[in-house]
Amino acid sequence: MAGKDPNRYCPVARTAAIVGTPWTALILRDLFVNGACRYQGLLDSLAGIAPNTLSERLKLLESHGIVERRFYEEHPPRAEYILTPKGRELGPIIRAMREWGAKHTDSEIPTGKTPAARNVRAKGS
Amino acid sequence: MAGKDPNRYCPVARTAAIVGTPWTALILRDLFVNGACRYQGLLDSLAGIAPNTLSERLKLLESHGIVERRFYEEHPPRAEYILTPKGRELGPIIRAMREWGAKHTDSEIPTGKTPAARNVRAKGS
Repeated sequence: MAGKDPNRYCPVARTAAIVGTPWTALILRDLFVNGACRYQGLLDSLAGIAPNTLSERLKLLESHGIVERRFYEEHPPRAEYILTPKGRELGPIIRAMREWGAKHTDSEIPTGKTPAARNVRAKGS
Repeated sequence: MAGKDPNRYCPVARTAAIVGTPWTALILRDLFVNGACRYQGLLDSLAGIAPNTLSERLKLLESHGIVERRFYEEHPPRAEYILTPKGRELGPIIRAMREWGAKHTDSEIPTGKTPAARNVRAKGS
């Protein structure tokens, strides 16, 4: 979306500028399904995403206060990504996308199966 | 999204492949707000969209059965775009995007105003 787009005055457009970024809805989906995700787990689930793209998307979501990194007190410390309260409020969007897709796009699936998102990477990635 | 992306098995991903296309959420927004839209009306509202891009998006939405063209019996006949029942079922997604954007992205608006989408083009386009 162009920076001078007058649609920036529209809340739908401002949300689209974040959630409409390729892969972002799928990152949010994984965070909702799994609660907390490590970087490698997201990379495995989102088969096809470039590591740099995943890093950029996570930084974008962090910059908007949607996602935050949490560090465990372990040796070595490990980081994982979780949704903030602001991020969790994106839930109705992701749920509505899932419901519409499940109802209206089944016919586009070659096998007719709809495995849970977390199982997708078992399918050849 | 790559054609061989295993995320095609996920209904969220399949919906994102349609609604996540740049401008598409804004076209849907206008169709929800206005009921029926002529091509020129969409072009005016979506300031910054290239005519070819608008045509492509409308064809994509038609190909997915989300939008249909309706012709009036006038001289000359005029066409307008309306949402199909399948398209109207995207309403919860657009509404959830509007609600989240209104709640969480106000601070990004220079003027602090959120005019209705249909009034946006009065702002200098």
